[in-house]
Amino acid sequence: MGVCTVGDYLLRRLQEIGVRHVFGVPGDYQLEFLDQVEAMDGIDWVGNCNELNAAYAADGYGRLNGIAALVTTFGVGELSALNGVAGAYAESVPVVSIVGTPATFVVEGKQKVHHTAGDGDFTRAAKCAGEYTVAQAILTRDNAASEIDRVLRFCWLLKRPVYIMVPSDVAYETIEAPADPLALLEPSSDPRKLEKFAGRARDALRAARSVAVLVGPEVDRYHLTGQLMELAERIACPVACLSNAKGVFPEDHDQFIGGYAGKLSDAYVRESIENADCLLALGTQFTDSVTGGFSQNIDPSRVIALHPTGAAVGNTQYAHVSMKDALLALAGTGVHKPSAIASLLQRRARGQAYEPVRSARLVQERFWEQFQAFLEPGDVVIADQGTAYYGCAELPLPHDCTFVGQPLWGSIGYTLPALLGTMLAAPGRRHILLIGDGSFQLTAQELSTLLRNGLHPVIILINNDGYTVERCILGADASYNNIATWRYDRLVEAFDPQDLAVTAKANTEDTLAAAFAAARSNRDRLVFVEAVMERLDAPESLVKLGKAFATADYHHAPVS
Amino acid sequence: MGVCTVGDYLLRRLQEIGVRHVFGVPGDYQLEFLDQVEAMDGIDWVGNCNELNAAYAADGYGRLNGIAALVTTFGVGELSALNGVAGAYAESVPVVSIVGTPATFVVEGKQKVHHTAGDGDFTRAAKCAGEYTVAQAILTRDNAASEIDRVLRFCWLLKRPVYIMVPSDVAYETIEAPADPLALLEPSSDPRKLEKFAGRARDALRAARSVAVLVGPEVDRYHLTGQLMELAERIACPVACLSNAKGVFPEDHDQFIGGYAGKLSDAYVRESIENADCLLALGTQFTDSVTGGFSQNIDPSRVIALHPTGAAVGNTQYAHVSMKDALLALAGTGVHKPSAIASLLQRRARGQAYEPVRSARLVQERFWEQFQAFLEPGDVVIADQGTAYYGCAELPLPHDCTFVGQPLWGSIGYTLPALLGTMLAAPGRRHILLIGDGSFQLTAQELSTLLRNGLHPVIILINNDGYTVERCILGADASYNNIATWRYDRLVEAFDPQDLAVTAKANTEDTLAAAFAAARSNRDRLVFVEAVMERLDAPESLVKLGKAFATADYHHAPVS
Repeated sequence: MGVCTVGDYLLRRLQEIGVRHVFGVPGDYQLEFLDQVEAMDGIDWVGNCNELNAAYAADGYGRLNGIAALVTTFGVGELSALNGVAGAYAESVPVVSIVGTPATFVVEGKQKVHHTAGDGDFTRAAKCAGEYTVAQAILTRDNAASEIDRVLRFCWLLKRPVYIMVPSDVAYETIEAPADPLALLEPSSDPRKLEKFAGRARDALRAARSVAVLVGPEVDRYHLTGQLMELAERIACPVACLSNAKGVFPEDHDQFIGGYAGKLSDAYVRESIENADCLLALGTQFTDSVTGGFSQNIDPSRVIALHPTGAAVGNTQYAHVSMKDALLALAGTGVHKPSAIASLLQRRARGQAYEPVRSARLVQERFWEQFQAFLEPGDVVIADQGTAYYGCAELPLPHDCTFVGQPLWGSIGYTLPALLGTMLAAPGRRHILLIGDGSFQLTAQELSTLLRNGLHPVIILINNDGYTVERCILGADASYNNIATWRYDRLVEAFDPQDLAVTAKANTEDTLAAAFAAARSNRDRLVFVEAVMERLDAPESLVKLGKAFATADYHHAPVS
Repeated sequence: MGVCTVGDYLLRRLQEIGVRHVFGVPGDYQLEFLDQVEAMDGIDWVGNCNELNAAYAADGYGRLNGIAALVTTFGVGELSALNGVAGAYAESVPVVSIVGTPATFVVEGKQKVHHTAGDGDFTRAAKCAGEYTVAQAILTRDNAASEIDRVLRFCWLLKRPVYIMVPSDVAYETIEAPADPLALLEPSSDPRKLEKFAGRARDALRAARSVAVLVGPEVDRYHLTGQLMELAERIACPVACLSNAKGVFPEDHDQFIGGYAGKLSDAYVRESIENADCLLALGTQFTDSVTGGFSQNIDPSRVIALHPTGAAVGNTQYAHVSMKDALLALAGTGVHKPSAIASLLQRRARGQAYEPVRSARLVQERFWEQFQAFLEPGDVVIADQGTAYYGCAELPLPHDCTFVGQPLWGSIGYTLPALLGTMLAAPGRRHILLIGDGSFQLTAQELSTLLRNGLHPVIILINNDGYTVERCILGADASYNNIATWRYDRLVEAFDPQDLAVTAKANTEDTLAAAFAAARSNRDRLVFVEAVMERLDAPESLVKLGKAFATADYHHAPVS
């Protein structure tokens, strides 16, 4: 690159690895860096209403774009964003968190400046960031090029957030920048271990009378969907997914049998997965909220498990075997174990047949049927943790759909700002958000950023008068699960000074049908649908999961 | 107390030390504790829209009530609140942060539960909390009574946040609770050191030709206003305050000469403070944003400085001398040094004389004049960092007014939720919030919580089209300092389903006068005034401070 400023070097490296938008909120320790962002061709600044929302937006962007960047200011900004960065850490989303800090001499002089506790300690927030990032750097003129490269490589390799502090006096320092593009790192395999793994896995596959595949989120995070498809089609076995990997394997595929969630699964899926003689668990994580509260019943001795940097055949572990190499090796075994598969679409096709009943009050079950009929190939569906997520998890997705949720970290309100990120990452697709009223209220102002950026999602607010997800666990009628009553249509108007959005309120099946029709015919406008349902109406899976959580956690579990 | 549950014990101790409201957001690891909050007489649950707002509300409550409590859920909730807790730490506000965590056996079993990274590490968020709290506890049945007491004592003694983890299975465990009320700790003095300090201070005071008092925030935090008044009136010297102690000394007092902020001060104040032969610096902290960027010119050899647990006469330090004892000792010296004082009210009285000019466009200078005429004795004035804070800092406050700002931590958006806290802490007083549009957008939804709780503040939104505080530092016309355009009147309607609020928009002097008149005659309603001013119109002190910050931090400081 030749001579350039530290700020420009960072931005060019980000651009090289695919960042085209930077999310954040300005603050007085990073204003010069923001000048550089603004001047940089090919990277756009996306100002958010607050830093948590910016972090969520970066997470959404990172999921669809492969990598994302976030800029906040020292102390106040980065701590506000921390829960969003932590979510990206928990759910393996590569986000580069850039923090503008006081100038080097201010830090060295332990000056009592604002955004600190006034005690000369400038390390506190960085220690917090260290808990939720896989690499950290404090840039100086001398270390900038090598530290930026090091940290970005970790972000890419480990698919988790990294943290870069840019002191305010460093962004405009000039450096001699390396000429070569950034050599990204990928998980690699020890050839001998890979060979051993492949041999043992081949034997297990060959010996099995039945094989099934269970897909987890790591396949998506490491961009291995192609290798997954090839392997699954070669074997010709049934494929299920955990809900946090929903849509990674095409749900209209004739091998796809549905979502697996332990005891909460459809009996056919449960049987196919739990009784498979050999189960290929590909990038799976058996966390409570995707397994019906650890209700999976899978015999580890019959599992071949792949993870980004390690694999296992039964109880034998193979470190340093990458998921990519392992997928290729398994496909290379040529094992073919076709079985009669009742695909999800065969068992559940009903979308096109939906007919709304006039004046029939909207209930969860019928809502999801109607929503399914609304889905189209290529949609990006984002669902907030709660009724939205668990309702969506059961729907067969059309071809090429992407599903975004956050079941492990489970931070309510995440999805509205995440939608901003997914839309900027994949502008050619239709994006549909499903979010409950309780969740929406946490991050509601980011709706204005969607409108400000001229984006046209379909937002479906499930208004069920409070935190239904918590009511399913404890306090069904407790006042602490109530929220403020809002007029959501006016809120959209407040954020939409040019009256570009379409709003609709639906409390019956036919008014919902009208709302969906309006969404179909207004693709160039943001469409906001308020779907009103009863407080305690929830997808059956969420009701059961709530009871499982309550039993695990509390003395006073609700009577089932 | 006899036998009670852990949760009830914690709530009763909180009640004993003055907590009547608990702020927070429900989450599934603390629902049983929330049941206990709901059942407890004398403590009300105040549900917030999100956790950062809840922490800000607790901070506002703590400032006026002396102590506050916050309840969030593990991981997601507490991290969202962290910036608010950090602000309370930086600015010395006692907030008890209570976090509901997974059950003990879940943690011990390293289960892969939601709100974790799925790796069995349950310590991350607690480590972050440790950076911004002065004591931490993980409750068990066995340690609950002693740990609760220990941590609450630290909170009270050090006037900073503490952190209590309540595992979900512990809240309903029963314990034998101590019968005695909680013995709170106060800073105390080593009698010999106090005597030495008092002797030396008396000599310095006696020898001085002129004495002045400069008041800092620690006087307020340790509830020592009475002792301050007594000392200042005995000496009969001029009294000034730092802006973070504004209102601690009555501003209508004939000894009060105004705010001191280094070079940004009025010449008379500056001279009185900087040239005093002996300056009593009482609980002061010379941080950048209250000193015009460290522009104070005070000779330490002429200063008697008091802090909560230590004092100094010139360059001689006295550890273990409490501010309370030191104030009493200084007053006990009987030193009386009257001087001719031109009080702030004498020099600046203009409030009642304000006459709006019809159709004259609203500008900052005239806005503040009119605002001053609107102020009444007993008001609580809360001002967000930016034009609001620096505009307010220059106004003489009527008798018994309280001023709330956050100049050291400086987290924009803090004040709207803080207003919820101040109002619940002091319900009999009129509360007035001043906040810029950029700041308001960060935490706007908490307006709905004010309405939901039937509170009647006057909220003045200074709409100057973006982050004017940042524009004063860098990027006056940069797009990153722009924000989304909102219709603020509609936003109030969205949050006010019963149409109880009064809204007014003012862009001229007479429309502002009409808005203030509406506020005066609607004391039983929330009044929301949108005051429209120019982008780059800012109080002179903020313009100068912005240049000082830019010069300190940046290569490309704006041309002055």
